[in-house]
Amino acid sequence: MPMTTPDVRFLHELASAAEKMTLEHYLKPHVIDIESKPKEGFRFDPVTSVDRDTEMCLREIIGREFPDHAIMGEEYGASGESPWQWVIDPIDGTRPFLCGLPVWGCLIGLKKDGIAVMGMMSQPHTGDRFWSDGKQSWMSGRQGEFPIRTRQSAELHQAILHTTAPESVALYKGNNFSALQDKALMTRYGGECYAMAMLAAGHIDICVEYSLQPYDIVPLIPVIEHAGGVVTTLDGGRAEDGGAVVASASEKLHRQVLDILNG
Amino acid sequence: MPMTTPDVRFLHELASAAEKMTLEHYLKPHVIDIESKPKEGFRFDPVTSVDRDTEMCLREIIGREFPDHAIMGEEYGASGESPWQWVIDPIDGTRPFLCGLPVWGCLIGLKKDGIAVMGMMSQPHTGDRFWSDGKQSWMSGRQGEFPIRTRQSAELHQAILHTTAPESVALYKGNNFSALQDKALMTRYGGECYAMAMLAAGHIDICVEYSLQPYDIVPLIPVIEHAGGVVTTLDGGRAEDGGAVVASASEKLHRQVLDILNG
Repeated sequence: MPMTTPDVRFLHELASAAEKMTLEHYLKPHVIDIESKPKEGFRFDPVTSVDRDTEMCLREIIGREFPDHAIMGEEYGASGESPWQWVIDPIDGTRPFLCGLPVWGCLIGLKKDGIAVMGMMSQPHTGDRFWSDGKQSWMSGRQGEFPIRTRQSAELHQAILHTTAPESVALYKGNNFSALQDKALMTRYGGECYAMAMLAAGHIDICVEYSLQPYDIVPLIPVIEHAGGVVTTLDGGRAEDGGAVVASASEKLHRQVLDILNG
Repeated sequence: MPMTTPDVRFLHELASAAEKMTLEHYLKPHVIDIESKPKEGFRFDPVTSVDRDTEMCLREIIGREFPDHAIMGEEYGASGESPWQWVIDPIDGTRPFLCGLPVWGCLIGLKKDGIAVMGMMSQPHTGDRFWSDGKQSWMSGRQGEFPIRTRQSAELHQAILHTTAPESVALYKGNNFSALQDKALMTRYGGECYAMAMLAAGHIDICVEYSLQPYDIVPLIPVIEHAGGVVTTLDGGRAEDGGAVVASASEKLHRQVLDILNG
């Protein structure tokens, strides 16, 4: 019998299915059929058959349990109409997946009436999972399972700033990213969804990404928000539709960051 | 009784000691006493008490087993005089260590008469280890233990290029890194020593780092070379002294890369 309300157990079920499928191909050369999708500012944007097969598998599990829910995924677009919409990216960070760098993740989010209410990021190689049930945010992995909080006390001059690709920064005209860099403690690159999860877990203080799709951010919004963080678009609106997205460890820091970036 | 010749078992013993000490503090906020060392091009170069304590522990184990050997480490410099020199970095990538991004590693290398002959990179959070006994290179972790090879077949236009920080690229005057980027398939950032290990394992094809210390690269040289890769300074010499260092998946690719960077 289908469940009536999605719960955290179901997020783990989806993540476990994706984990099995992606790990089978991770660090295995020559078996991935790499294609390239066009993407602004990048010469090559990879998609693999693992991305597609994993999304199909997740769609089947969701369809079985919640046949009335809508689904949006990276590889197969949007289907169904419902106040409940699952928003999934089977492999967020196909590039680090191909490079063997364990900062990619399986992203599973759930929106209700347009607002992200539950979400999970699962990194199969490390075994780390980060999720929110809509009340609290959690991490589990080799160090056990525990609630996570952003670093509320971080001042701008002590803040660790992250963005995945310098190429994306250069694309976004009129932004003041370098002014933000000058004020923060240090800048890291290349962390993909794992960096957003680490913001929720209190180890990174500011994440700026200039060209996200909805499935890149919806699953992370509840994880960040229920850990005490703030995530909005660059102009301060809800981030569910993606675009230029900023996440910060606290409300105070977030206001400063938006002021600088929009200054 | 001290061993007469260092072996792989001893590398694992050192890595296990470092693993225990570093994991105790990884992902734990507020317990790390962060200091900053000056470093060209960066406003902040962190060192933690975990770095220092772990190096001291490794020095003690080496000193007990090989009292006549010399040691060079990131935190306590060079000590002893011997044709055998251990070259260690307890936490290569203190920045990703602080950010919770699992691309830092414990690096343990051994030089004989100035040449790197054995080495290991251990990533405690993922449980991955990459090493060479001076004959073959190996990886172990959640996917088992297996010999690794670089991607010998990679042509330049298919190559995945990595460098840790765009800031370092900008520092090195007169280099043609952007010309190399234009010819390669894609560029990744932020991978630290884990990216060099993934070059040895066949998932990244070119690594360029502009300002390495000996302890950043000596432990990785045997792992890359005995996996079929090539690693030299930008001017083509041995890389044991660090500086601007280039690693490539094959001899042919390496020649092309050096030509472009020096062109």
